[in-house]
Amino acid sequence: MSSTSEPAAVPPRRGRGRPPRGESTDTRDRILTAAREEFSERGYEKTSVRGIAKAAGVDSALVHHYFGTKEQVFEAAIEVAFAPAFNAPGAVADGPLDGVGERLTRFIFGIWENPTTRTPLLAIVRSAVNNDTAAAVFRRLIGAQLLRRVAAQVEREDAELRAELAAAQLVGCAMLRYVIKVEPLASADLEQIVARVAPVVQGHLTAP
Amino acid sequence: MSSTSEPAAVPPRRGRGRPPRGESTDTRDRILTAAREEFSERGYEKTSVRGIAKAAGVDSALVHHYFGTKEQVFEAAIEVAFAPAFNAPGAVADGPLDGVGERLTRFIFGIWENPTTRTPLLAIVRSAVNNDTAAAVFRRLIGAQLLRRVAAQVEREDAELRAELAAAQLVGCAMLRYVIKVEPLASADLEQIVARVAPVVQGHLTAP
Repeated sequence: MSSTSEPAAVPPRRGRGRPPRGESTDTRDRILTAAREEFSERGYEKTSVRGIAKAAGVDSALVHHYFGTKEQVFEAAIEVAFAPAFNAPGAVADGPLDGVGERLTRFIFGIWENPTTRTPLLAIVRSAVNNDTAAAVFRRLIGAQLLRRVAAQVEREDAELRAELAAAQLVGCAMLRYVIKVEPLASADLEQIVARVAPVVQGHLTAP
Repeated sequence: MSSTSEPAAVPPRRGRGRPPRGESTDTRDRILTAAREEFSERGYEKTSVRGIAKAAGVDSALVHHYFGTKEQVFEAAIEVAFAPAFNAPGAVADGPLDGVGERLTRFIFGIWENPTTRTPLLAIVRSAVNNDTAAAVFRRLIGAQLLRRVAAQVEREDAELRAELAAAQLVGCAMLRYVIKVEPLASADLEQIVARVAPVVQGHLTAP
């Protein structure tokens, strides 16, 4: 989506003239990492492109050049964090339908247990509950990347609603375990939770 | 909890000398209403006792006098909004165990559908995901008022975890339907949702 920027158009940084091959990718990555941290710590509203640029050690203009508006930086920062997981073969939406509940459950808990993806997830949750623009980004991203793909497998008229109720079980678990930290759920053994939650997710998707 | 303040100790307001009977209750209510609106609009962190006092048309000292710290105002503002629902006979935790899933589901959707209780719920969610103090209030309140009472009915070793996984399904539904507003869930017929969600909540609580 925002990957069309051409290295030749990047203004030279740090007085080094034309950046060496690979620098623009490094810079983009550094900006995205800084963006994830800023959004996660401050939430969408309090984060500014200027603050992200400062944390990444670049000029604000470069952030705008690569990504555009704050909303677009937010979307890119979140998307890039999940692309490997969403695109991993068989991760969620591929594979047999009778195992989709467990795959989806393990996928969602997996990205929350992993510190690298937990930061952007916290950023999404904190931002989306407080800001309509961030909520729209969340809807677009999760809708297109996950829910539609799961729903496409479930060949029923109410497939999208089913996928969302399944997602609701997982979103609620993540909220109570990782964000609000309600005990005993916050410290419960992951396998004990998966054993209870995966059949529920499966049921939402495929039960009559 | 914070209802021990004595009218005699209230400083006279608006130069009227000793307040007439009932005034202190009115003032408390006005402060709590203002507090709910402030917390809901701004979230926990950005809300101040001063701002609440201003919105209620009283002095900050009076807010402190009635309720104590900001955390205590927050807890009181939320608690008072839910007291009628929590204490309604048979609302949730009373009644036969085989109907608890549907009662709990209807209760949670009911307080989200009702504009009077939706405001403090948004305040809780927005505040709890962004602030540890507010998250602790949420844990205390929902834990003591709802989860423990439900878990007490479910006579099993893992009753609390079961109650929390049931709550997770409902929290996730509320997040996606009322906060993030994901379609088609946000506009779906309530009865269609209850028909799918109530058996899941029941299953978490009582299935083997």
